[in-house]
Amino acid sequence: MEPLFIQSSANQRIKALMKLWNRKEREARTTFLIEGLRELTHAVQNGVGVGCIYYCSDLFKSEQHHAFMQIAESEPSVERVRLSPEAFKKLSYREGPDGLIGEADMHYFDIDEINPPPNPLFLVVDGVEKPGNLGAIIRSADAAGVDAIFCCDLKTDIFNPNVIRSSQGLIFAMPVVVAESANVLDFMQHVGVITHATTPDGNKQFWDIDFSGPSAIVMGAEDTGLTEFWLKSADTRAVIPMHGAADSLNVNAAAVVTLFEAARQRNLM
Amino acid sequence: MEPLFIQSSANQRIKALMKLWNRKEREARTTFLIEGLRELTHAVQNGVGVGCIYYCSDLFKSEQHHAFMQIAESEPSVERVRLSPEAFKKLSYREGPDGLIGEADMHYFDIDEINPPPNPLFLVVDGVEKPGNLGAIIRSADAAGVDAIFCCDLKTDIFNPNVIRSSQGLIFAMPVVVAESANVLDFMQHVGVITHATTPDGNKQFWDIDFSGPSAIVMGAEDTGLTEFWLKSADTRAVIPMHGAADSLNVNAAAVVTLFEAARQRNLM
Repeated sequence: MEPLFIQSSANQRIKALMKLWNRKEREARTTFLIEGLRELTHAVQNGVGVGCIYYCSDLFKSEQHHAFMQIAESEPSVERVRLSPEAFKKLSYREGPDGLIGEADMHYFDIDEINPPPNPLFLVVDGVEKPGNLGAIIRSADAAGVDAIFCCDLKTDIFNPNVIRSSQGLIFAMPVVVAESANVLDFMQHVGVITHATTPDGNKQFWDIDFSGPSAIVMGAEDTGLTEFWLKSADTRAVIPMHGAADSLNVNAAAVVTLFEAARQRNLM
Repeated sequence: MEPLFIQSSANQRIKALMKLWNRKEREARTTFLIEGLRELTHAVQNGVGVGCIYYCSDLFKSEQHHAFMQIAESEPSVERVRLSPEAFKKLSYREGPDGLIGEADMHYFDIDEINPPPNPLFLVVDGVEKPGNLGAIIRSADAAGVDAIFCCDLKTDIFNPNVIRSSQGLIFAMPVVVAESANVLDFMQHVGVITHATTPDGNKQFWDIDFSGPSAIVMGAEDTGLTEFWLKSADTRAVIPMHGAADSLNVNAAAVVTLFEAARQRNLM
């Protein structure tokens, strides 16, 4: 079947879709948009329910874009809508769009759905504000081999386009749970995972902490750091020692340094 | 002596200063602007030649801002110019300015000025494009105890306001050299520093590389990675192993992970 074609950037469906870049509308409709080949590929490979693909082959940047659409064509459950370059650029959230946007159903992992693998490595992010930071942390967590991410008291939502973009779609490559801190702590204690708070007031250098067993690394917000809850309840308090005039690392840097120290220790086992 | 007061945001001096946010004008006049208390404090503490301070105490955000100006008042070589909130906001490069901008003389460290300390840790950045990334890398380098940074073939200049801002002024806390790759390599070989290229095609995991002796870690550009020059001439080629679906870390994350592994190894000595 030939896909629907939308020529005009003033089309009503385009206007309605654009509203999904905003959190309120996403949450009302429980769908969200995924832009870009890399991001959509991770989504599809990880079973995210992509119901419709909006595409403009004039904007495709590689052979992989065409290959992606060929696979989509063979998938009867996926609607395809072809857009003119004007309509696509209107819809796109990016400069230099690559001609691919998917609409997908929101799915939040419930904490009870998390079935820890043997010797899990978890990441807890508490209060992070900027979507770009959350996405960067997720990308780093994936690279370090994190099994699941637990988000507490976020100032953004995980379906924000900048989270998806700066994670490069890796947000779809692992379970991401949104839950209350108290529930996350209960879960960790229940499954026997040691919680490690990272804080400038830590009492142990991070490289002296044993991350080789079941571990959850807990990162705080950009400016305010960890909440009292985690500072009091975590099993250890790790500090990244500062060797120069800087008084701290930014939250992305602190996360990736700590996570790769865990990866290093686990590699020795 | 009472400082000059500029009320109008249409003032000619304000207009001329604003041009310093652009590279061409900076390089023509060999001065640049430093905005923000934290950034100016690092500049002054490290002997950057701040010739004039533009301030607006109505915008000060803390007691430290007043204290900074009190010290500046006692420094006869530093001109002070008071601005109205309107004039300051016009000049400012930021949202929510804090009322402090300094004008300073550009100084480039010459490679021959670098006098390596015992067992130096150096960072070489080759071809980095985004000022925000360069600044973030500099902040991480300071935190990890890097003794000097060597910039080759940058797509930005080190006096870009976003470099200064995202480094939080730590660019002033260590020597930053801008030089050709070949000259940097010559220097490292001359002073007996081992060069470590970081690349996805590396043949050794970074944690298996010995950074405990005199070391220079070489980072490439955001998208294109390291140049053939460094891939061929560096003494080792380090890879950061990827444990998930991600094919790489971003350049800031890769830099801080590698630098803190060097810091960790040196801490054991």
